[in-house]
Amino acid sequence: MISVSIVGGSGYGGGELLRLLLGHSQVEVKQVTSRSHLGEYVYQVHPNLRKRTQLKFTDPAQLEPVDVLFLALPHGQAQKKIDEYAALASQIIDLSADFRLKDAALYEKWYGVSHAAPAWLGKFIYGLPELHRSEIMEGRYISGVGCNATASNLALLPLVQAGLIDLSAPVISEIKVGSSESGAEGNAGSLHAERANVIRTFSAFGHRHTAEVIQETGIQDVSLTMTAVDLVRGALATVHAKVKPGTANKDLWKAYRAAANENPFIRVVKEQRGIYRVPEPKIVAGSNYADIGFELDESNGHVVSICAIDNLMKGAAGTAVQCLNLMKGWDEMTGLDFPGLHPA
Amino acid sequence: MISVSIVGGSGYGGGELLRLLLGHSQVEVKQVTSRSHLGEYVYQVHPNLRKRTQLKFTDPAQLEPVDVLFLALPHGQAQKKIDEYAALASQIIDLSADFRLKDAALYEKWYGVSHAAPAWLGKFIYGLPELHRSEIMEGRYISGVGCNATASNLALLPLVQAGLIDLSAPVISEIKVGSSESGAEGNAGSLHAERANVIRTFSAFGHRHTAEVIQETGIQDVSLTMTAVDLVRGALATVHAKVKPGTANKDLWKAYRAAANENPFIRVVKEQRGIYRVPEPKIVAGSNYADIGFELDESNGHVVSICAIDNLMKGAAGTAVQCLNLMKGWDEMTGLDFPGLHPA
Amino acid sequence: MISVSIVGGSGYGGGELLRLLLGHSQVEVKQVTSRSHLGEYVYQVHPNLRKRTQLKFTDPAQLEPVDVLFLALPHGQAQKKIDEYAALASQIIDLSADFRLKDAALYEKWYGVSHAAPAWLGKFIYGLPELHRSEIMEGRYISGVGCNATASNLALLPLVQAGLIDLSAPVISEIKVGSSESGAEGNAGSLHAERANVIRTFSAFGHRHTAEVIQETGIQDVSLTMTAVDLVRGALATVHAKVKPGTANKDLWKAYRAAANENPFIRVVKEQRGIYRVPEPKIVAGSNYADIGFELDESNGHVVSICAIDNLMKGAAGTAVQCLNLMKGWDEMTGLDFPGLHPA
Amino acid sequence: MISVSIVGGSGYGGGELLRLLLGHSQVEVKQVTSRSHLGEYVYQVHPNLRKRTQLKFTDPAQLEPVDVLFLALPHGQAQKKIDEYAALASQIIDLSADFRLKDAALYEKWYGVSHAAPAWLGKFIYGLPELHRSEIMEGRYISGVGCNATASNLALLPLVQAGLIDLSAPVISEIKVGSSESGAEGNAGSLHAERANVIRTFSAFGHRHTAEVIQETGIQDVSLTMTAVDLVRGALATVHAKVKPGTANKDLWKAYRAAANENPFIRVVKEQRGIYRVPEPKIVAGSNYADIGFELDESNGHVVSICAIDNLMKGAAGTAVQCLNLMKGWDEMTGLDFPGLHPA
Repeated sequence: MISVSIVGGSGYGGGELLRLLLGHSQVEVKQVTSRSHLGEYVYQVHPNLRKRTQLKFTDPAQLEPVDVLFLALPHGQAQKKIDEYAALASQIIDLSADFRLKDAALYEKWYGVSHAAPAWLGKFIYGLPELHRSEIMEGRYISGVGCNATASNLALLPLVQAGLIDLSAPVISEIKVGSSESGAEGNAGSLHAERANVIRTFSAFGHRHTAEVIQETGIQDVSLTMTAVDLVRGALATVHAKVKPGTANKDLWKAYRAAANENPFIRVVKEQRGIYRVPEPKIVAGSNYADIGFELDESNGHVVSICAIDNLMKGAAGTAVQCLNLMKGWDEMTGLDFPGLHPA
Repeated sequence: MISVSIVGGSGYGGGELLRLLLGHSQVEVKQVTSRSHLGEYVYQVHPNLRKRTQLKFTDPAQLEPVDVLFLALPHGQAQKKIDEYAALASQIIDLSADFRLKDAALYEKWYGVSHAAPAWLGKFIYGLPELHRSEIMEGRYISGVGCNATASNLALLPLVQAGLIDLSAPVISEIKVGSSESGAEGNAGSLHAERANVIRTFSAFGHRHTAEVIQETGIQDVSLTMTAVDLVRGALATVHAKVKPGTANKDLWKAYRAAANENPFIRVVKEQRGIYRVPEPKIVAGSNYADIGFELDESNGHVVSICAIDNLMKGAAGTAVQCLNLMKGWDEMTGLDFPGLHPA
Repeated sequence: MISVSIVGGSGYGGGELLRLLLGHSQVEVKQVTSRSHLGEYVYQVHPNLRKRTQLKFTDPAQLEPVDVLFLALPHGQAQKKIDEYAALASQIIDLSADFRLKDAALYEKWYGVSHAAPAWLGKFIYGLPELHRSEIMEGRYISGVGCNATASNLALLPLVQAGLIDLSAPVISEIKVGSSESGAEGNAGSLHAERANVIRTFSAFGHRHTAEVIQETGIQDVSLTMTAVDLVRGALATVHAKVKPGTANKDLWKAYRAAANENPFIRVVKEQRGIYRVPEPKIVAGSNYADIGFELDESNGHVVSICAIDNLMKGAAGTAVQCLNLMKGWDEMTGLDFPGLHPA
Repeated sequence: MISVSIVGGSGYGGGELLRLLLGHSQVEVKQVTSRSHLGEYVYQVHPNLRKRTQLKFTDPAQLEPVDVLFLALPHGQAQKKIDEYAALASQIIDLSADFRLKDAALYEKWYGVSHAAPAWLGKFIYGLPELHRSEIMEGRYISGVGCNATASNLALLPLVQAGLIDLSAPVISEIKVGSSESGAEGNAGSLHAERANVIRTFSAFGHRHTAEVIQETGIQDVSLTMTAVDLVRGALATVHAKVKPGTANKDLWKAYRAAANENPFIRVVKEQRGIYRVPEPKIVAGSNYADIGFELDESNGHVVSICAIDNLMKGAAGTAVQCLNLMKGWDEMTGLDFPGLHPA
């Protein structure tokens, strides 16, 4: 058993992290902090945890040393106090965007401000096990992943790893997302009466997660187009790319199956019949699975690769716990066994 | 480890049962039958189970002996073959309505047909652990519960067990339900374009589950009013009753807390602040919890007791597994540890 | 053609009022005020009105005289400036709760504050044409109606007007509502990720609209139980009452048909087949219809009367325009001809 | 006043057509046919039309002559009996896909069967007024439009008509659609419990409506990628294309504004603030508007053009009535004045 604490536990990512860690056989949760809910029972904010824990939110200024510290703060805050946090725990997993990019200039370009702790950027490992498993196993400081970047990166993973993709052609990742991506604070457009029933392409390109896709896939001309739909949890990336000349359906099958074989949380969904023939976010809601599938037009090399995740799980808290398991040498699926629901 | 099989595994109740049993540490699932999906992988119908099992649906005519047999057939079928099933397993848990009522005349009154195996009615125990825990622990044949009956019975449980309710006054249970209650076959009104956005009071009174409430609570004048709302999983019973003269808020608090203390899956939700002050089905989706709460008008004795459940879990498959645990002397929560999601 | 202005046009009620008045053949909209959106085009807030009007929100302090002034302010504001408004227009229709109750003591009881202009209470007519048509036709000052009160009052109307209801028995109005009832400001629980998928009985009894039901029906023991469901527009009242001994189904049919015959916006929905057998809010969304239906248990006199309305239309802006038509002697349906959509 | 009849009035397109024609000042609806609902009141199937018409569904074999005949049959049926229909009315508007394509070979390629009445293909005009207004005004036989084709064609219209688009670059139209596109019959995946909460990319490319986009825009390399989302009405096309070198934002503004100026049902939505900055289907639900907007990356010429429509209105029945108005020389907006709702 190790001890962990969560800094910033009243948000959606922090809440899911807490749910997972409370059910994790190797972990004891020591503290969960929240300024706005200080002193409240965590189950008053995350009502699914009622009768599962009597923890109350504590003051982030009174953090105690632990084995592993999870940071689930709004973007921009972890970088300001990273030295303090590093003094409390020998291992840190940060769910925010603060340490995802290797290059401080790239950070400034996409986030519009200079990084407060650029020296730390090189110490963090980009925490997507499907791309950096062996590094994570040796790591001390792990960065979380962007949910939309993850859906895109995992859709592209089989194509990139098998060398099938034409890296010179533009890539368009059309991402449809639920409302939990806006966080527990939301914005004017998050009011139910305005947000319900939407199909709202709120960002044609320029989304910050684009930087993570460029960094991790090496593809330079990639656009993330974001469309909000009426759902709470889930992100689906429908990625349009070109394969190299001569690439056939069987090559893609081989590449996608390899991805699933090498990664416990990747599943290939490509059925000829039934209702569920393609990856769908609702089927992975609450789980850490990333379901992937594809269609190839052999006549022109146009490939549509699809990835469905739960943005709060595989796109945030689930992957963070997966990284913890790898860092500690535990089974990669420990505490992540919930398979999702059907119907949902 | 015991062996179990599920007869009728392609429906929603059967699918949830399978999910739970695959994740149950003491159980091995031997067969899952389905005529309509014979030979298909179960994950083609229940896509959440992909990579969790390689089981295929088998022919119900080729069932093999097991330790415990689960029946998840459409209502009316189990009673026709109960002798055959009993020859295959020494313990049976039936999720249908076939063996819920003790009295064959009552069955005929509410179901409109005479029962095909009335001699078996007395052998089955009504499988709601909160009402019949000790009998279930000794039982061989357990009947499943009606989801709407369960929401009503658990809302009424603290009032009945503490003797606070005026049994002579009419009780109205206003139940709001999701679309999974109509089953995987659905009906004309289940088409998404017709079923979405509904608030449809499809049954003012006369719902068959009423019989289970009468049988289990002893209240004679009880109405179940059913309203379909736009949700997949969940049932909320808002039950209107009268308490006996002189009953005060503190008496109810005591009764509700006792119910929660005595039953691991009952939680009291009655908060003064925050977003989640009352029981809500979405918070228990996928879990076996029944959240209960109440409001009392001390001036006239009008009590509103609320119970939220997942109709496929606490209202069907979850309670069935809970009964299995009790029958086998295992921890009551084995395999039922998923706490639900927030946000959801 | 008459001139009208709307005070408080950026809220949901004000927006619907504007939509109706822009499409009304006898009306010219002169001003629409909003402090928070001052200077913006109204279509920036109400995007459905783009290309229908070039009006901008103006300062409420710079209102000009008009024939009829509509007040669509948050509750409590109209009563503070009613003398000023009365100086600007000879006829006023107020959509808020400020002038609905005749009795200042009743107002204080239900709203918790003393009324700021009690002398005006007697000057206003409760603006539900189905109850006060002839008074409204002669009226100068019309009060809007509470949406939940209206659903309840119209469900009860046939029973009350035909003298079929047992006035001594308790009446329970179980009301299910969409998120637009919380207004354009919303509250913490209105965030999409929290409000989606809910079945939330947020008020067991004590809702302010209860006072309007008591006042308008004369029934003293009436409870409004409020449950939020996942929908934007719509309110359904499922009202439980007792009929007088000997009342038969045919008596109710007669009473409900009479209500529909006498009122152009009331329709009886009680079908034996098809998908739409009962009143449903989604079918009346955007329209001014109130659909009503019933079920009677002749064995015990328990009647369930159902009324479906669009809370922003028949429950607010639609009824206000209907009152305008009556005041001016125009066809009652002028500008209110949109029938709603199917599918929806 | 002219007389019209609708062949195939029980489907969703036929129902909307009926709603519009009942509210049209120049039209009298004579017959509405339906085999499956023969003899029923139309309001039993389309409950929004209760109290608006006493029409019953009649036998399609007993059609009488009318001025204009509307065909709203499932695809493939109109072509088989077109000669019979032509004998009944001098003008025909067909909502199906049967007469959209000019080229019988193209029809066979995309629909997989040879056309039953190829001689008629040349007689029909593709009924999208924004592309063929003057021809429609002179036309006798008008073909309806595909909803997804229309969203794509109108998104591309400003770029094509202003000559700004690079016709040699591939065009990807990512279309998100509601469940009413599957029609009143639906399919296995249309059951609410399966269809709710989906983000389902059910067709990566190869959708039949692609042929209409190729025919009407002249772009050869165009893909329609279809994703079902949880909504009843609405289609959003997010179209990715390349503009010619040197094309600037101001050029696009000019082109989009021109499209809106020349077409009463086209609106440009491109706001810098507020909740509604981009086209959204829910805002046009029930209306005949097509809202369009764009984003241009001047650095690489990547343009994202967006079009939101109601698939049953601008994508079907609304455009059909717009064509009727043009054919008859009436104001183009007659009977199409409903502006949509907010909130929705």
